[in-house]
Amino acid sequence: MSSTAQSLFSTRSAGFKPSAIREILKVTETPEIISFAGGLPAPELFPVEALAAAAADVLAEDGPAALQYGPSEGYRPLREWIARHVAATTGLSVRPEEILITAGSQQGLDLVAKILLDPGDIVLTENPAYLGALQAFRAYEADVVGLSADSEGMDPAELRHFLLNCPRRPKLLYLVPNFQNPTGTSTSLRRRAELAEVAAEFSLPILEDDPYGSLRYAGAAVPALASRPGAADCLYLGTVSKILAPGLRVAWIAARNRAFYDRLLVAKQSCDLHTSSLTQRIVERYVAAPGRLGAHIASLCSVYRARRDTMLAALARTLPAGSRWTQPDGGLFLWARLPGGWDTAALLPRAIAAQVAFVPGAPFWVGTDERATLRLNFSNSTPEQIVTGVARLGQALSAR
Amino acid sequence: MSSTAQSLFSTRSAGFKPSAIREILKVTETPEIISFAGGLPAPELFPVEALAAAAADVLAEDGPAALQYGPSEGYRPLREWIARHVAATTGLSVRPEEILITAGSQQGLDLVAKILLDPGDIVLTENPAYLGALQAFRAYEADVVGLSADSEGMDPAELRHFLLNCPRRPKLLYLVPNFQNPTGTSTSLRRRAELAEVAAEFSLPILEDDPYGSLRYAGAAVPALASRPGAADCLYLGTVSKILAPGLRVAWIAARNRAFYDRLLVAKQSCDLHTSSLTQRIVERYVAAPGRLGAHIASLCSVYRARRDTMLAALARTLPAGSRWTQPDGGLFLWARLPGGWDTAALLPRAIAAQVAFVPGAPFWVGTDERATLRLNFSNSTPEQIVTGVARLGQALSAR
Repeated sequence: MSSTAQSLFSTRSAGFKPSAIREILKVTETPEIISFAGGLPAPELFPVEALAAAAADVLAEDGPAALQYGPSEGYRPLREWIARHVAATTGLSVRPEEILITAGSQQGLDLVAKILLDPGDIVLTENPAYLGALQAFRAYEADVVGLSADSEGMDPAELRHFLLNCPRRPKLLYLVPNFQNPTGTSTSLRRRAELAEVAAEFSLPILEDDPYGSLRYAGAAVPALASRPGAADCLYLGTVSKILAPGLRVAWIAARNRAFYDRLLVAKQSCDLHTSSLTQRIVERYVAAPGRLGAHIASLCSVYRARRDTMLAALARTLPAGSRWTQPDGGLFLWARLPGGWDTAALLPRAIAAQVAFVPGAPFWVGTDERATLRLNFSNSTPEQIVTGVARLGQALSAR
Repeated sequence: MSSTAQSLFSTRSAGFKPSAIREILKVTETPEIISFAGGLPAPELFPVEALAAAAADVLAEDGPAALQYGPSEGYRPLREWIARHVAATTGLSVRPEEILITAGSQQGLDLVAKILLDPGDIVLTENPAYLGALQAFRAYEADVVGLSADSEGMDPAELRHFLLNCPRRPKLLYLVPNFQNPTGTSTSLRRRAELAEVAAEFSLPILEDDPYGSLRYAGAAVPALASRPGAADCLYLGTVSKILAPGLRVAWIAARNRAFYDRLLVAKQSCDLHTSSLTQRIVERYVAAPGRLGAHIASLCSVYRARRDTMLAALARTLPAGSRWTQPDGGLFLWARLPGGWDTAALLPRAIAAQVAFVPGAPFWVGTDERATLRLNFSNSTPEQIVTGVARLGQALSAR
């Protein structure tokens, strides 16, 4: 428990530091660099023509409403589709009245933090954890505590031990059960059940963030943690960012706890009144065509699976002996650990000199300093770029 | 000063009350009711075809970028246009690097509150003040204090007196100098200068909210308060919501103080990463056509001026003797005060029974309870509807 105790005293000052995500996005703007750094979906796969047709239809048939103010809850037909989509893909039975449309999942993180967190409150996360979530929680001066996670997800025994022994009652448990960012690993069915049980025992609300769940390249879908009996206080975040297009900024919170929903709604209204009436309708129009989104996701999975496989094979040829890396069944990322005394933050400038970029692992860790880790994105590079980029990474590694 | 002292102890509990704006929007959804309640621009005037063409062009020529993640600062060509537009229309000389794109002005209010306000901090506003701003400030548990305003705007002498005598130093001065919501009145040039001077003397940051400035039906434009010498700490909010379409959710903060800008940028990123890449590009494409936005605004002004005039004439025929109301030179609203013991909250159910809606004035007041006031919107009803609606209001008034 020493690492978690350490984090209690080390994270609050990080509240307004310049964001690592922003710096990542800037590196990816340089065209000569092959970037495994960002978390971007492949833009060449966006269904541009279908979305253009959807936009044209929406503006031709419903233009004034698409350009006017709308309800803070979101566009009702889209909320109805989301309720069906969530039930079909995650097993979470949810009504349209329990769906709140947000401007991307990042806003979902912010709204949940806004209603649940006061300065000094404890949030529990997997360690390592998603940077955007850490930033959202720390913006409210929460103390983030990272708990150990392995190839099956967060350790329920450690969670229980922490909750039994923590002098202050934590306010939130944040989990990314499918193809986690940054590691790419998933929480097993058994662990989901155990984590939900422990959280229920301690009346600890769960925030389940699921941006990647539909991007599965191997294995069978695992029901959402929020769908477990007793998980009625679980807030579930979904988004079209990774399965359709992030530039639309359309995502959702499913909240079956009415008190949470009502507070989230007031917070949403206070933050930006409502999400764009136009982009909500474009999404609704796109997904209304039967089978279209499913076929698009299948095509994304086919491309991303090949990119993942290419990266895994290239890493096996390239990384130094003693390296380990994850074998994700889906999502956008894998996570590697170099042997011995490697420091990936020190490696990065050499990698950029060799025209390849990645994200050093250190910022993802909470209260620890695992400097030999790094995150690699495989969705936004072609197989040829992946082969070349990993070879360049090999050059940077050899240049030590 | 008794009213401001009272407000210090009466406003914090209101932080999460259901929003009056939301209830207003719900009333306007009933088609039989002529609504003067909302703050909606006229949807029949939206340039639907031009925006549809802009959307089609953007997606045809720049589709992948319009659908991808983008920088938190906003789309660079749009920031360049905004800098020129702000300088041309308000006299505020601002560089593109000083523009942060937001998801509507409401997000600007939220971001400024997020970086400047802690629980118990004092925010000074005109009294009455915009409900969405009050909600944003109170969400951060600020104490809002309303200072007297007349037909020339906030009283600088009262501001100075408050700052000299307040035991806690206020953190923010919030002003809507052009066609204020809810009163429709504007702050005179002399008052702008005096308010800026007092704020500078006490190092009090100003938040200047200007959603309506371009909708002027009489008189000459007055330079923005932010353009005054010594007002470098003034944060200026602008938006396309009232001059183009609110459903796009595209607005901006101009912040010449770099420390403020940097903190706003981090807060924006934490709140929703960035505003929709698509809607930003649609706006940029629309305004890039020389003269187009100006012609559209001129056409809006022509229609809204006639609606304002119709409402003013109808009120003169209808309201009981002893009533007073403002004569706005622009914007969307006017503000009326009934004589004697009228309570507009009690009048509203009778008005709705007569199929007309307005907003009772009480929620706009901070720390006082002026129950005889009401806000009337004239932009979202035709002249015929205005004549009929004010006649119905007369019936409701006679039914007492």
